[in-house]
Amino acid sequence: MSTRLGDLVERLGGRLIGDADKQVVGIAPLSDADASHITFLSNPKFRTQAAQTRAAALILSAADDEVVGPAYPGARIVAANPYAYFARAAQYFALLNAHVPVPGIHRTAFVDPEAQVSASASIGPHAAIEAGAWVGEDCVIGAGCVIGRNARVGAKTRFHPRVTFLDGCRIGERGIVHSGAVIGADGFGFANESGKWIKIPQTGAVTIGDDVEIGANTTIDRGALADTVIEDGVKLDNQIQIGHNCQIGAHTAMAGCVGVAGSAIIGKHCTFGGAAMVLGHLTIADNVHISSGSMVSRSINEPGQYTGFYPLAKNAEWEKSAVIVRNLPSMREKIRELEKNIKSLGEDKE
Amino acid sequence: MSTRLGDLVERLGGRLIGDADKQVVGIAPLSDADASHITFLSNPKFRTQAAQTRAAALILSAADDEVVGPAYPGARIVAANPYAYFARAAQYFALLNAHVPVPGIHRTAFVDPEAQVSASASIGPHAAIEAGAWVGEDCVIGAGCVIGRNARVGAKTRFHPRVTFLDGCRIGERGIVHSGAVIGADGFGFANESGKWIKIPQTGAVTIGDDVEIGANTTIDRGALADTVIEDGVKLDNQIQIGHNCQIGAHTAMAGCVGVAGSAIIGKHCTFGGAAMVLGHLTIADNVHISSGSMVSRSINEPGQYTGFYPLAKNAEWEKSAVIVRNLPSMREKIRELEKNIKSLGEDKE
Amino acid sequence: MSTRLGDLVERLGGRLIGDADKQVVGIAPLSDADASHITFLSNPKFRTQAAQTRAAALILSAADDEVVGPAYPGARIVAANPYAYFARAAQYFALLNAHVPVPGIHRTAFVDPEAQVSASASIGPHAAIEAGAWVGEDCVIGAGCVIGRNARVGAKTRFHPRVTFLDGCRIGERGIVHSGAVIGADGFGFANESGKWIKIPQTGAVTIGDDVEIGANTTIDRGALADTVIEDGVKLDNQIQIGHNCQIGAHTAMAGCVGVAGSAIIGKHCTFGGAAMVLGHLTIADNVHISSGSMVSRSINEPGQYTGFYPLAKNAEWEKSAVIVRNLPSMREKIRELEKNIKSLGEDKE
Repeated sequence: MSTRLGDLVERLGGRLIGDADKQVVGIAPLSDADASHITFLSNPKFRTQAAQTRAAALILSAADDEVVGPAYPGARIVAANPYAYFARAAQYFALLNAHVPVPGIHRTAFVDPEAQVSASASIGPHAAIEAGAWVGEDCVIGAGCVIGRNARVGAKTRFHPRVTFLDGCRIGERGIVHSGAVIGADGFGFANESGKWIKIPQTGAVTIGDDVEIGANTTIDRGALADTVIEDGVKLDNQIQIGHNCQIGAHTAMAGCVGVAGSAIIGKHCTFGGAAMVLGHLTIADNVHISSGSMVSRSINEPGQYTGFYPLAKNAEWEKSAVIVRNLPSMREKIRELEKNIKSLGEDKE
Repeated sequence: MSTRLGDLVERLGGRLIGDADKQVVGIAPLSDADASHITFLSNPKFRTQAAQTRAAALILSAADDEVVGPAYPGARIVAANPYAYFARAAQYFALLNAHVPVPGIHRTAFVDPEAQVSASASIGPHAAIEAGAWVGEDCVIGAGCVIGRNARVGAKTRFHPRVTFLDGCRIGERGIVHSGAVIGADGFGFANESGKWIKIPQTGAVTIGDDVEIGANTTIDRGALADTVIEDGVKLDNQIQIGHNCQIGAHTAMAGCVGVAGSAIIGKHCTFGGAAMVLGHLTIADNVHISSGSMVSRSINEPGQYTGFYPLAKNAEWEKSAVIVRNLPSMREKIRELEKNIKSLGEDKE
Repeated sequence: MSTRLGDLVERLGGRLIGDADKQVVGIAPLSDADASHITFLSNPKFRTQAAQTRAAALILSAADDEVVGPAYPGARIVAANPYAYFARAAQYFALLNAHVPVPGIHRTAFVDPEAQVSASASIGPHAAIEAGAWVGEDCVIGAGCVIGRNARVGAKTRFHPRVTFLDGCRIGERGIVHSGAVIGADGFGFANESGKWIKIPQTGAVTIGDDVEIGANTTIDRGALADTVIEDGVKLDNQIQIGHNCQIGAHTAMAGCVGVAGSAIIGKHCTFGGAAMVLGHLTIADNVHISSGSMVSRSINEPGQYTGFYPLAKNAEWEKSAVIVRNLPSMREKIRELEKNIKSLGEDKE
């Protein structure tokens, strides 16, 4: 399905320079775009490539437009943030082609008579919605999802197939939860008594804000007493584990395989690279950025980028360096000895 | 639902000092508790805070009671292990408020005619129980669970929604398996032939003892020939991977995201911090404690705490130290040279 | 069910020395095998043990046969690759005892009228197959699986229970996908605008070749524009995360908990140890082997074994070495100073 360039800009904003009647069908990268595509320039180092793209239209910043505009024959859309504009334009095209699930409850789904499901919501095959659950307007609940007792799903939130959203958990509006995610399993809490573990019941829930996205097979545990809290706009990738009673600040994003142990309090606008790990009961300030594969073992009070992983090397080289790492204390001892010896040699000389 | 303090102590033990007729509704932390709560003191450094809590009753040790007792106006429950007592009291209150699933098979569940399900078990919506499977008394099998052919679920074991428990696997009594866990998928076994992988069929199963808890989206693979074994009282958090033919000793606990490669033999009463990893075919003694984020690359014969992760730093500092880590062999060479030079300087002097 | 040794060799090849009429029931390791088993010798260091095995027959190489053959009283099967022969023999026995799912659609499954399911395929309880999906001959789709719109599953491919295979994804023939795997969830793509994340729709899919095996709870994200690609013969263990637009080369194998960030291009015949991590947009050559727990933070152009994890130590020792690791730049400074001092001492002497 194609759309008129002028209609797109009318909806998304920005300044159009060129033919508003051009028809475009979608977005493509600079190198792949043809005359039916829009493309975008978000990094000035690709200006030369942008000037040569065959795309029908180019989204770019005012600064880049000064340089690229004169050389590029197609239409231009000048925007403050070309990458965000690209994202919105891509959403626009995706919506044109999206399959829209039909409202209503699939005949194979089970909805408890004491659950409340909005008439505009779509409930997929073999979904189960337990007593007291509440599913808002325009929600899409995919095949095989389970929504527990007294759980609450805000309007326009979408659960892809096979999400588990357990008793008493809440998610706000416009959320997206991907397949296999488990929200509200018990936190990991035990008291040790003579070597055996006594379970501490987990009676809190999970509270999730608006505009949150949760990746496939990600798990967020319910709190022990109070709730685990995921604030507005948080984006979690796949295979993430969030322990009980964590608090993840608004608009923080975590890449795949991150783990956050229980009761960690994480600030707003943080980013976590893949497989980063956070120990329990730590506090992390706003605007902290943790590199992939790094272990956060103490609280962080100052914004900035933090890293901690062992550098990769050919195995034979790693073996040599790793042995020395283990013996660093003796190396330091040797250096201290050398210092003493040199000092004594110097003094002898005087 | 409230309960009389005297009734609680009669059931759970401990020595009650104070009004046995007080009514309490639940447990709360020292700082949050009000006159309807019990609270607990498990760490002497909070004695001052404990003396000031507004709770109706305080669980504490005899030693702490000597100090705190005289200052605290409420009732006291003196117990040998206040934290374990708290856990049991919390269980007591949780049970008062818990939703009890109705025995019977949900009309949307599928139970093969050749499966055996105890009449007291509760089988949730869209669960599937295959031929030859056996589900014991008072079991709760949640919505969307799959129990494979000839699998066996011991009495009072609870599967939360969407657990997969595959052919021939067995779990004992009073187990808890959380949503998304997969027990009994094939172990990862292949023979390489001219660059292609030939699958080695995995014909063992998984045998799980009594009182085991398995976290959300955790996976335990079936053995290649013999079974993978999880002994009594083991507690596994979320997102854990246990490879084929592993043996996890009784009462060992693993935090989230731990990975254990195939054929590792792990002792009893061990603990593993989050994201710790164990290579295959290793043996780990009883009472070994592995810190979070640590890679266990050799067998451990001696109890104790073991650690191995790169310390976190500001990214710029990490970059400097990481370069040196890679060049440690040349640094050691330089130190050896210095030693020689100093020695020769010293000898020259003589 | 037992089988005649001669029949097995006729089917699998190799040279049989000994009684072709012997009946065998399965495979067992050297130490456990009895007179009803075949066993195998793939590592010359077990020659002595092999000569003493009680197995009915021994699979071994021609070189090992020269040494072991004269001493071993049972039958021998001489094969070019005894370990691969063992794998095939084990498959043979596993098939004899395997439960064969009945073709047809389970009465509790939902198959959209616009989906195409081969008559020889078996669709399990509560499976859901959406409009436009295509399921080939002899496929087995387990209980609770979800196959999205226009997805395509090649002949003889088996999905174990509770696999999610989303819209438009494709897998070739003879694939195996284990329970809880999620293929085709959205890749993790967002544009940041004034601190908020704008979703970049993920409109590619996942394309998977023939003979691919995908582990339990593994996730493979759909591409942003083009597809994520998994080539023929790839073997992925459990709990793996493959980001959007990755390309995994043919016959590459990854152990559990590996993470590959978006747009990484990985060569053929690579292996990844457990919990290895690969950053996004990297390129890794063919025949690269990454050790467990290693972070790949740059492209690798040369085949070989690469490693990068912090060595494990007793916690007290780790604490000492880790402090020094963080202070390595100052240690290097000190060494430079020592060099200067020694040089100046040496010059003074002249």
